[in-house]
Formats: sequence, C-alpha cells, structure tokens
Amino acid sequence: MTLAEEVLQGSRLALARLITQVENGTAQGRQALDELFPYTGKAHLVGVTGAPGTGKSSLVNQIALNYRKLAGGQEKRVAIVAVDPTSPFTGGAILGDRVRMRDLSGDPGVFIRSMASRGSLGGLAAATSGVVQAMDAAGFDMILIETVGAGQAEVEIARLAHTTLVVEAPGLGDDIQAIKAGILEIADLLVINKADRPGVETTERALLSMLQLAHPSPHVFHDNNFKSGHSLADFQAAEEALIRSGEKSSRTIEALWIPPILRTVATEGTGVIELLVEIERHCQFLVETGELQRRQRARLKSELDLLLRETLVSRWRSQVSESHYETALESLVKREISPWRAAEILVDHSSGAV
Amino acid sequence: MTLAEEVLQGSRLALARLITQVENGTAQGRQALDELFPYTGKAHLVGVTGAPGTGKSSLVNQIALNYRKLAGGQEKRVAIVAVDPTSPFTGGAILGDRVRMRDLSGDPGVFIRSMASRGSLGGLAAATSGVVQAMDAAGFDMILIETVGAGQAEVEIARLAHTTLVVEAPGLGDDIQAIKAGILEIADLLVINKADRPGVETTERALLSMLQLAHPSPHVFHDNNFKSGHSLADFQAAEEALIRSGEKSSRTIEALWIPPILRTVATEGTGVIELLVEIERHCQFLVETGELQRRQRARLKSELDLLLRETLVSRWRSQVSESHYETALESLVKREISPWRAAEILVDHSSGAV
Repeated sequence: MTLAEEVLQGSRLALARLITQVENGTAQGRQALDELFPYTGKAHLVGVTGAPGTGKSSLVNQIALNYRKLAGGQEKRVAIVAVDPTSPFTGGAILGDRVRMRDLSGDPGVFIRSMASRGSLGGLAAATSGVVQAMDAAGFDMILIETVGAGQAEVEIARLAHTTLVVEAPGLGDDIQAIKAGILEIADLLVINKADRPGVETTERALLSMLQLAHPSPHVFHDNNFKSGHSLADFQAAEEALIRSGEKSSRTIEALWIPPILRTVATEGTGVIELLVEIERHCQFLVETGELQRRQRARLKSELDLLLRETLVSRWRSQVSESHYETALESLVKREISPWRAAEILVDHSSGAV
Repeated sequence: MTLAEEVLQGSRLALARLITQVENGTAQGRQALDELFPYTGKAHLVGVTGAPGTGKSSLVNQIALNYRKLAGGQEKRVAIVAVDPTSPFTGGAILGDRVRMRDLSGDPGVFIRSMASRGSLGGLAAATSGVVQAMDAAGFDMILIETVGAGQAEVEIARLAHTTLVVEAPGLGDDIQAIKAGILEIADLLVINKADRPGVETTERALLSMLQLAHPSPHVFHDNNFKSGHSLADFQAAEEALIRSGEKSSRTIEALWIPPILRTVATEGTGVIELLVEIERHCQFLVETGELQRRQRARLKSELDLLLRETLVSRWRSQVSESHYETALESLVKREISPWRAAEILVDHSSGAV
C-alpha cells in the first residue's frame, strides 16, 4: 500500500509521516500529494491570525473542542496546523502543543501539527499548503490554520483559508497591532479575545472605524449591525438595494460581507459557540454566492503561477553555475552592465548550455 | 546623437521622452536605460510615503524648493517622481502637478514627473525604478520619490530610496493609518505634517510607542532623544557601549539609527529646513557606516533576481500557447492533476518545443 493509500484509509501515523515528508520537501512527499490531490477540496479551511499575546492558540483549541462537541453523532473531524513564521525553532510551537495535548489528546477526531520556519518564508507558505492538502485528503472536515500575524508571509498563509479570523485583544500597543501588514484586509471575521479585560470598548471602536474606512457604502453599512452580525436576508436585501440603485458591480460580493466583530474569552470558553455559528454562516455565504468556487479557482491559479515560476527558476539554476551568477552580479554592482543586460546574459547562457 | 546621449547632455525634452518610453515599456526605452546605466548611482534617492490627506505633495514641493534655495551657488538639482499606485488614471497626479507648477515652474534645476498605475503594480515598481535611473543619469543630485502609502506596492517603490520619509498627520483615523502594511518598518525619518493641527501630541505618542516596540535596546533608546534627533557622536557612543556590553552584532547598524520624529507645516514652510538637515544627516550616516554600499548592492541583487524571473517567465510564455495554459488550469480546478504536475507539464511542454 502506498503512503497516499494509507492516508486515505485513515491512518494517523501515515498522515504524520506524510506531513514530515512535505515539510522536508522530499520527492516521496510530493508524489504522495500528487496522488492525494483528487481527494482534496472538501474541507472548510479556517485561518486564524493575530499578534502574539492575543490568545490565538487557546482560541483555536476552544474552536476545535466546541466543533467536536457540536458535531456530536455526525462525527465531524477537525485538524489544526499551527505555523510560526517568526521562529526558526519549534520551541514555541512545542509549548503550544503541550497545552493542546491536555485539552484535546485522546480524541481521534482531532489531529494537530505545528510547523516552524526552516528556510525561506515562501517555502513555509508552500509547505503549509501541502500540509493542508494532506489533511484535507485525509478527510478532516474543518482545518484550522493558525499563524502569528506579523507580515507578508502570514498573509500568504492566511490566503489558503476560505474563512479568515483576525484575532485582537484589548490593550496591545494602543490597538495599533491591529492593522499591521494589511491583516485587516483579509479578515472575514474579527474576534476580540480576552474580552473580559479593560479596554475592550476601545479595541472595538478602533476596529469599527477601520471597517468604516473599508466599507463606506451607505446601503450595507450601519454601525449597529456589527455586534449582532448580519443575516443572509440582510445581504440579499442589501444586494437588491444595490441593483436598484444601479451600483451593482463586481465588488458587490465583497461589499455584501462586512466582517462581524465578536467577543470571546477563550480561557473560559465564552463566545466560542457564537463564533462557530458565524464561521458556519460565512461558509454558507461563500457557497450561496458562488464566492467559494471563485476563491478556490483564484487560489489554484495563483498556486500554479507560483509553481511555474519556481520550476522555471530551479531548472535555470541547475544549468547555471554560482560563479557565473556572481560574475554577472559584480559587473552589475560596478555598473558596467544594466540589470536587464545581466538578466539576459544569465538566461541566454543557460539556453546556450542546453 | 542617441536619446541616451541627449539625456547625458542635459536635454530636458530628451529626458521627458525617455521617461515616456520607460513607462510604455518600449525596446527603445530599455536600450537607452542600458546605455545610461553606467552613469547612475550618484543621486541621493529620498522616498516620501504616507496616507492620503497627510499633505505629502505639499511637503515634497517644499523640500524641493528649500533644497534649491540652500544649494545656492552650488547648483544642486532636484527631480520629483510622484507615483500613485491606487489610481489607474492620472487625474490626481495632474492636479498635484498644477499646484507644483505654480511653486516650482520656471526653475531649470527642478524636474517633475507623475506616474499612475497602468497595469500590474509590479510593473509600476519596475517602471518607477527605470524612471529614477533616467533622472539619476541625467545628473539630478536629489530625487524625491513620492508614493501613496497604502500597501505592498508602495513599500516596493519606497525600497528604491536610500532615505525613506513616512509622513503622518494629526487626526487621521485615530493614528491608525500609521501602521498600514508595515510602512513604519521602512521609515528612516518620521514626519508629522500639518503639525499646527490639534492632536499632534497624540500622533507623536502613537509613533513613539511604535518606535519603542521596534527599538527596545536600552543602550540606544531614550525617550527624550526623539525630538532632537541624534548626532553621529551619539551613535558612535552607543555603538561603543554595545561593543563593551558584548551585544554588538550584525543588527547594530540598524539599531544605531532610530528614526527621528519631526514636525512640519508644509503649507507655511515650517520645519522644512530642519527636515532637510535630517535627510542630509541620514545620508552621511549611510555613507560613514558603509550601509549605503550594502543597500545599493542588496537592491541591485534583488532587482537582478526579479528580472531573471520575469525574463524566464516571459520567454516561457512566448513558447506556450494560452490554450495550453487554460487546459492545464481546467484540469487543476477539476482536481484531475495536482498543481506540481500542472506546472511540470507546462514547463516540459515548452522545453520540448525549443
């Protein structure tokens, strides 16, 4: 039986081994993912990102625990992949795992894996994508992708998700962490965790004013909608209003989902059920509007384009020696040749060598 | 005489024509830039970025005006390239130009050009780099690169600069604009423009607390240093302290320059001379620490790598038909083949066609 077949038959050990192969970028791992790819595309991918200190890990645990409880007889299974692009070590990740083990261990419907940055951040995003595909093929219904929100790499990783939660907490650097690296632009749901702490209103106001900047449309935006969230009927009514007013456009779908702001206290489990309801509502919204299909297609296209680039560059690198590259770079630094000429010389060299 | 030769002889008309060629990505433009490249690398490139409403354009005008005044008999010339990645139209840019014309027109030591996004943002960054090279070869001593600070593209454009100014203003969305898309991470100087408005202390406090997060070293960081800025002697003393304490590392250079916070009122010219002094001080700092050379080399290397990728991809595209690409993408979306397989099939196809 191949590794891929073992994964499809539900072997946790095989899944763990496959993920290690994917992390190490082995040919065997890649071959297994190739074999598994037709079985992917069924899981609901939920990204969870936010600054350190927001309590993301506890929140992810609680989401997993409550999802399993709500699933009941339905046997919905959940996988967690925790990615830390800021650390080349697995220290933090392992610590997080220990806490998780206490809450979630022994439940065969839960699978947890931590990943830390080993080399390039781009490589981490690609590896995470592979790990998520493995979990998806293995039949997990919800996959939680947890990242530390601090830069472009996290945004890349979060883009894997269908539904992205951005987690805030009161009193972190004057609410200024909130907006780092355009993280708000990718939020489908905004969660204020540790909502029993002072300053929660300030955080909520800051998020509200950011949302107002992002969603200025008077048809769909009303302050008092935020706390309760919208119903699908609200969206349909808003869409009809847009059509009547002649403003319906390709941006309508985006305009129709305004991220609701939710409050949670993950350590006590408060607000987690409500959060799961909103996650489910967002999933339903994506399906009913056709946005899910559009996002999947766009994501696969950008993954293809990225891999095309990587394949072309790596084939080129295998044909050109390091010393040729260094020689061209030196000429460039001395301004003897232009960047375009240097690139052309290097590419022509490899073509000639074929 | 070639276009490049005319530019080198100081023809403003030739420069304007070359820039249009560069913007349109013509072969003639590229050839001229190739010819001009050995004459580049002399100008001081100053990036100016910030959210809409901060008064960036007025500030850039004032910097240019005062730089010309201070230059006096020395005949230092200044060029401005204003880039608006948010707009596919030149409307805003043209408006800005009209204001500029009033202040700066008729001065042969000033050259102004606006650029708006025409296609991809990546393309705009590359075009801006070409325009700056043309101005540099034409002998302008300072080149001001103005961008609207709103995302990754602006960061890319700002990376062209040796010295980057991030412009803020009081009362813009609770000082939250400040931190969008990691713009603070690229700041060498922080400018609070419109500093006669209420709320200037709040803005300054927000910037200070951001800086404290970014520069936690007790050796070099003292609150009261910010308003006055540091002298080079301060940096040297701080560096020696670091060496004594055994903390000296590759991050020392970065740690030694803490962005000073300056207040300006561009419409009245207040604080602009002080700002120019700080720009000059930063330039001196870059030269004396060897950081200038390191930045130039790193920038040229990343430009080469980018152009290598583009050259490889565009050669590949010329060998593979659109329908082949679409067929592979469709198989991928139907999950018949994996992204890796699709990329390999497409790359192998083009190799076979060579």
